[in-house]
Amino acid sequence: MGGDRVEGRRAVTELLTAGRRRVRTVWVASERSDDLAEIADIATRRGIHVREVTRDELDDVSAIEVPQGVVADADPIEPAAVDQLLAAPMAFLVALDGVTDPQNLGAVLRSAETAGATGIVLPRHRAAHITPAAAKAAAGAIEYLPIAAVAGIPAVIIQAERADVWTIGLEADGDVTIDELTVADRPLMIVLGAEGRGLSRLARERCDVVARIPMHGHVTSLNVGAAAAIACATVARLRTTTL
Amino acid sequence: MGGDRVEGRRAVTELLTAGRRRVRTVWVASERSDDLAEIADIATRRGIHVREVTRDELDDVSAIEVPQGVVADADPIEPAAVDQLLAAPMAFLVALDGVTDPQNLGAVLRSAETAGATGIVLPRHRAAHITPAAAKAAAGAIEYLPIAAVAGIPAVIIQAERADVWTIGLEADGDVTIDELTVADRPLMIVLGAEGRGLSRLARERCDVVARIPMHGHVTSLNVGAAAAIACATVARLRTTTL
Repeated sequence: MGGDRVEGRRAVTELLTAGRRRVRTVWVASERSDDLAEIADIATRRGIHVREVTRDELDDVSAIEVPQGVVADADPIEPAAVDQLLAAPMAFLVALDGVTDPQNLGAVLRSAETAGATGIVLPRHRAAHITPAAAKAAAGAIEYLPIAAVAGIPAVIIQAERADVWTIGLEADGDVTIDELTVADRPLMIVLGAEGRGLSRLARERCDVVARIPMHGHVTSLNVGAAAAIACATVARLRTTTL
Repeated sequence: MGGDRVEGRRAVTELLTAGRRRVRTVWVASERSDDLAEIADIATRRGIHVREVTRDELDDVSAIEVPQGVVADADPIEPAAVDQLLAAPMAFLVALDGVTDPQNLGAVLRSAETAGATGIVLPRHRAAHITPAAAKAAAGAIEYLPIAAVAGIPAVIIQAERADVWTIGLEADGDVTIDELTVADRPLMIVLGAEGRGLSRLARERCDVVARIPMHGHVTSLNVGAAAAIACATVARLRTTTL
């Protein structure tokens, strides 16, 4: 599942404040800003080992390209059980059918968490995992949002049906617009396809609804991060206004 | 302004099909996929010089990290005049007050174009320009969306007021939610702040409305690409339903 190496200021701050995982070490660049000093303070108060290092030493520890001056080493994320995610009374799940870019994955996690999603479903293989780059882009969302790893998304769609969770595939040529989703106030799972290719045939066939985001320009598709942000915000809005 | 080096399949396809700029050369990796063959065909039909190169040669030509097998060399983007953008009858502009990451810039352009935005306003200094990475992330949006470069966003907000264009700053603690925007059906300009810092004090003070995206989780902010996607989609929706 990953998540044991967390980089970036927001991501490390949320790791420390959520306090759900054991943190072993926090490396902080010695040319500190106020932000970094605050992170070091929080870590110290929680009895976590803080190592002040030079910018070069930090670059060596960092697994991403542009480190933000702080890296933390923590217990990996505990995976959630998909049947528990499906059993939540007002489930609001996001399943990613083969998103391979860690930054896109992180961006989707962040948008989903801020929209009130109750869980994420990721395929175990041929997909991005919670790498340091994904953790950074998620900006702390991985500390709060349960994530289940599954053998395949099409099989989870069948499980969802049995659990009375509505499945909503997102595609550029969907049958209804997301604004017309009449099932937003029920337990649901949004299914997003891979960058470029979109939903797999099987996933698409099995979804209860295939919805589209209205498009008003020449460019015919959104990136998966933008599509997830709009779809999750729409579900949040429809739930707020119809409940 | 940039835009003279375009990479990525979608971005190059739109460059060729829009046909608004002179394209000198298209480099295509010789281990061609169907996609790449189609791009080469379009280019050849338009009388553009297509060079088939090895993957290694393409990597040398490419300015981005993971080239997608195609790079094009074109005339740079012609900047738009901000007063013309402001004069459009149903102006729907997006101003970026200091977004520095080219991928974020590209993602915002793509989301804005698909939402029907009529123009983009970028600061000339201390901000991302249309680099190859931005062009790739924009997925062709730069071929259709007029872009103006200005000395500063706060000055443009004053210009907008004089042109009867409503200015809507986006901030996590905005006074109204974007769903309550009563001015969506009038000429408007959304103003987005920099990653991390948000809107500058001056920009915020000068905006007619400061709006927020409703947040339902622990993470307290969205990335600028996700925020732009949601805000632009919301304006598009409000315009469709209120007009």
